[in-house]
Amino acid sequence: MQTRWQRIRNRLHTIVFENDTWAGRLFDIALLLLILLSVAAVIAESVPALANREIFQILEWGFTAVFTLEFILRLISVRNPLQYLFSFFGVVDFLAILPAYLSLFLFGSHELVVIRILRLLRIFRILKLQEYTSAADLLAASLRESRAKITVFFVAIFTLVITLGAMMYVVEGHSNGFKSIPSSIYWAIITITTVGYGDIVPITWMGKLIASLIMLLGYVIIAVPTGIVAVSLTGIANRREINPQACPNCGRQGHDSDATYCKYCAEKL
Amino acid sequence: MQTRWQRIRNRLHTIVFENDTWAGRLFDIALLLLILLSVAAVIAESVPALANREIFQILEWGFTAVFTLEFILRLISVRNPLQYLFSFFGVVDFLAILPAYLSLFLFGSHELVVIRILRLLRIFRILKLQEYTSAADLLAASLRESRAKITVFFVAIFTLVITLGAMMYVVEGHSNGFKSIPSSIYWAIITITTVGYGDIVPITWMGKLIASLIMLLGYVIIAVPTGIVAVSLTGIANRREINPQACPNCGRQGHDSDATYCKYCAEKL
Amino acid sequence: MQTRWQRIRNRLHTIVFENDTWAGRLFDIALLLLILLSVAAVIAESVPALANREIFQILEWGFTAVFTLEFILRLISVRNPLQYLFSFFGVVDFLAILPAYLSLFLFGSHELVVIRILRLLRIFRILKLQEYTSAADLLAASLRESRAKITVFFVAIFTLVITLGAMMYVVEGHSNGFKSIPSSIYWAIITITTVGYGDIVPITWMGKLIASLIMLLGYVIIAVPTGIVAVSLTGIANRREINPQACPNCGRQGHDSDATYCKYCAEKL
Amino acid sequence: MQTRWQRIRNRLHTIVFENDTWAGRLFDIALLLLILLSVAAVIAESVPALANREIFQILEWGFTAVFTLEFILRLISVRNPLQYLFSFFGVVDFLAILPAYLSLFLFGSHELVVIRILRLLRIFRILKLQEYTSAADLLAASLRESRAKITVFFVAIFTLVITLGAMMYVVEGHSNGFKSIPSSIYWAIITITTVGYGDIVPITWMGKLIASLIMLLGYVIIAVPTGIVAVSLTGIANRREINPQACPNCGRQGHDSDATYCKYCAEKL
Repeated sequence: MQTRWQRIRNRLHTIVFENDTWAGRLFDIALLLLILLSVAAVIAESVPALANREIFQILEWGFTAVFTLEFILRLISVRNPLQYLFSFFGVVDFLAILPAYLSLFLFGSHELVVIRILRLLRIFRILKLQEYTSAADLLAASLRESRAKITVFFVAIFTLVITLGAMMYVVEGHSNGFKSIPSSIYWAIITITTVGYGDIVPITWMGKLIASLIMLLGYVIIAVPTGIVAVSLTGIANRREINPQACPNCGRQGHDSDATYCKYCAEKL
Repeated sequence: MQTRWQRIRNRLHTIVFENDTWAGRLFDIALLLLILLSVAAVIAESVPALANREIFQILEWGFTAVFTLEFILRLISVRNPLQYLFSFFGVVDFLAILPAYLSLFLFGSHELVVIRILRLLRIFRILKLQEYTSAADLLAASLRESRAKITVFFVAIFTLVITLGAMMYVVEGHSNGFKSIPSSIYWAIITITTVGYGDIVPITWMGKLIASLIMLLGYVIIAVPTGIVAVSLTGIANRREINPQACPNCGRQGHDSDATYCKYCAEKL
Repeated sequence: MQTRWQRIRNRLHTIVFENDTWAGRLFDIALLLLILLSVAAVIAESVPALANREIFQILEWGFTAVFTLEFILRLISVRNPLQYLFSFFGVVDFLAILPAYLSLFLFGSHELVVIRILRLLRIFRILKLQEYTSAADLLAASLRESRAKITVFFVAIFTLVITLGAMMYVVEGHSNGFKSIPSSIYWAIITITTVGYGDIVPITWMGKLIASLIMLLGYVIIAVPTGIVAVSLTGIANRREINPQACPNCGRQGHDSDATYCKYCAEKL
Repeated sequence: MQTRWQRIRNRLHTIVFENDTWAGRLFDIALLLLILLSVAAVIAESVPALANREIFQILEWGFTAVFTLEFILRLISVRNPLQYLFSFFGVVDFLAILPAYLSLFLFGSHELVVIRILRLLRIFRILKLQEYTSAADLLAASLRESRAKITVFFVAIFTLVITLGAMMYVVEGHSNGFKSIPSSIYWAIITITTVGYGDIVPITWMGKLIASLIMLLGYVIIAVPTGIVAVSLTGIANRREINPQACPNCGRQGHDSDATYCKYCAEKL
């Protein structure tokens, strides 16, 4: 039999975490609005023309109070507080209130409360946008599946920009913005990603020649992650079209949609 | 029995909306030329060396008069004026004459008549370029189908540039162009899309380090929409080519859309 | 019976156009070297430190004499001179000697002789690099097949940059580099292609907002041609794996590699 | 029977080249750390605030001594020293110690020791990260397979940037950074790769028009390598998954690589 406390906790959980009741839905939408407002307030405060007004301080502590209360409610109402605390949204919810308290001790960290914007990612789940949630899952799955390839790609890029950066440092000398190897590596990254700020540019003809080769190399390099993601997205999309049926004998899945017999144990599907 | 008015309306409709008659075709081609000329006139007027000549004023009102007449003709000749008015081309046709009249009251909005250029999108239909119309349909279908994925992508980018912008604002301080969080967000967008104007660049080594990470991150980010569109285009192209019909004899599928006989057992499909 | 002139012409044709004889191969390789040298000479002449030396004039007229002689030989030895003259390489060969003669009358057009570099495209055929020739064919076929989609894409981009350019001209005013609508269109192209020179940048916050939206829009836009080319390349590569067999009854092709019967007339393949 | 020398050599080989023993693993991890440290030292030395300290000289010669010793050990312990010497890692290992010795004679080449970073590419093999090694193999295979297409692509880009560079040199004249044809070619590469430093920009309206066309052309050009890599990655990934085996009973193919029974007739494969 449920104690009174358990009943309250279940009720709280329905409001705070679920959104299939009138109260739960209201709670979630109010929360989204508060998050947007609190982020807007921090952004507005940073604009010189609006800065140093007392109103922002009051607003900020108001938002922090509400979000702290919400965080405590979540911790109370959830069955397993630790699991929530170390989940993605648990960490985000905690980081969303931390900078405000930290700013009491550390001057300047206050602007980091914009990290609250990450809480907005709940929006698809809250608004019950099934299509968008599954699109997000697909993209996340695609990036997760490409993890090994993307890591290898970044290790290759890492060694490449260090080598190229050092080469340009030798070629261009200390002048022209290539003041040190780290500066040269920074330039190599700007160039190979095709960002091209133009704050550091080669001056010598040898440097320009190397830069040209790097840029042309960048053509093929930028093609690699695109190819990886495209292939992975296709693969995942195709696999979803695969026969979802499990073998009645051995229980294994992954059969083609045109299979008549289990490919592992020959049982009729 | 048709009244005289209905006969005139049908005749008008054939000229204004269709292009399978001699008159309809002439009307459409004259219209395309007028659109091009009117856009060219607005663009030419904005060039300082040519500006403030009376000829542009006269031309502009001439074009506006013709397009207004054409808009009235379309409203009269169409069976369902409201449906036309709220269709894509109905809105475009209206927007094409609106700025000229608005400029009587609002100084400066006059240049917006270049929106007439959107009317040029009729070109493929008018010139009966079947291949191009279906290519346009395919691209539009592909983007429409990717809508959910692209929305999720932009929500992710949106939260990312706000977070990164705020971080750079804290790191770089008020100087160096990172004057406010909106400025920093603007910089983050310039960097992550690999545009890289160079009007705002990080100065501190910490800022350069974060910028480098953002640029490398941009590598994977730019791969995502490309992957989405590529997969969607492939999917749509494939779906159009596959015949969903099964053979009535052997029951097997996968026939081409132009097949008359089953490729496995020669039964008529 | 061949006349003496026909024998000479055939011999010439073997040397000038073919490369399966000792003489033909030597001719082609000597030609490639001369093309490279003549282009290098023009490039070197443009460098201020090397300019105005008489040697370049002499070299230039030497190269022009040789290429003119070669062009005449090609015209004489080919069976159908007009067909050659209007083929891709016929036009290129003519353009390669034209600027030198033009520079006698028009000062400044002399540098255009670098168009000779286009003649280098013969390199794959000459060096009998079968793999590369078929790769070039594949890429060309892919771009040709995507012609309709790419045209639609460019018409859309064309209307987009004109609309955006006019909008930014209104928003940013005459100052800040947005001096005229053409200048604004130039900026819109720089931004949407992610080149981002930074010679023209928005100053007002409204302009920065619109610029940010354009850049983010550019994310999806740049994905479209990539998707088109990728899909087209895949399609062509797949089709080459298709059954090359023609039906012995109706003679039509395009059967799948697993087809047993003609899908058009049910004849056994 | 093994001589004593052979036993020592085998033992050395196990430590230096393999990593399935306690000693071999320790050796490899110590090596990775030393490589990272030695690269970090060179990078740190180039920073003006840290430069000219004696400690870097000592460190550098210490690292060089250790790597020279390691190189000698590898040469001694390997069965076929010449094969190792001309393998990829043999060349990298040699280049990693060469610049230090060269810097005794050639002033300034010292920074090239950062080429040691290339030795880090061993990391995946050493840490037994099977998934990453096969991802690296897949990427390398994909680029190798696309070699012909990418070469053709670069030859086309090469002729294109030379032609465009010369054209812009004629149009823009000697001023505006387009000082020579090589400078113009450098600009064309910056533009067509969408890097866009902004150190050289067109000033005349004719130059801006040509630049606009080049940028729009760049849209399609950048799509080509991406398409090539994507298609190649898909092809390789698919080929690895398909079982080429035909069913001994019904003779049909297209079974997955993990299938034990025919999916059409249940015969054992």
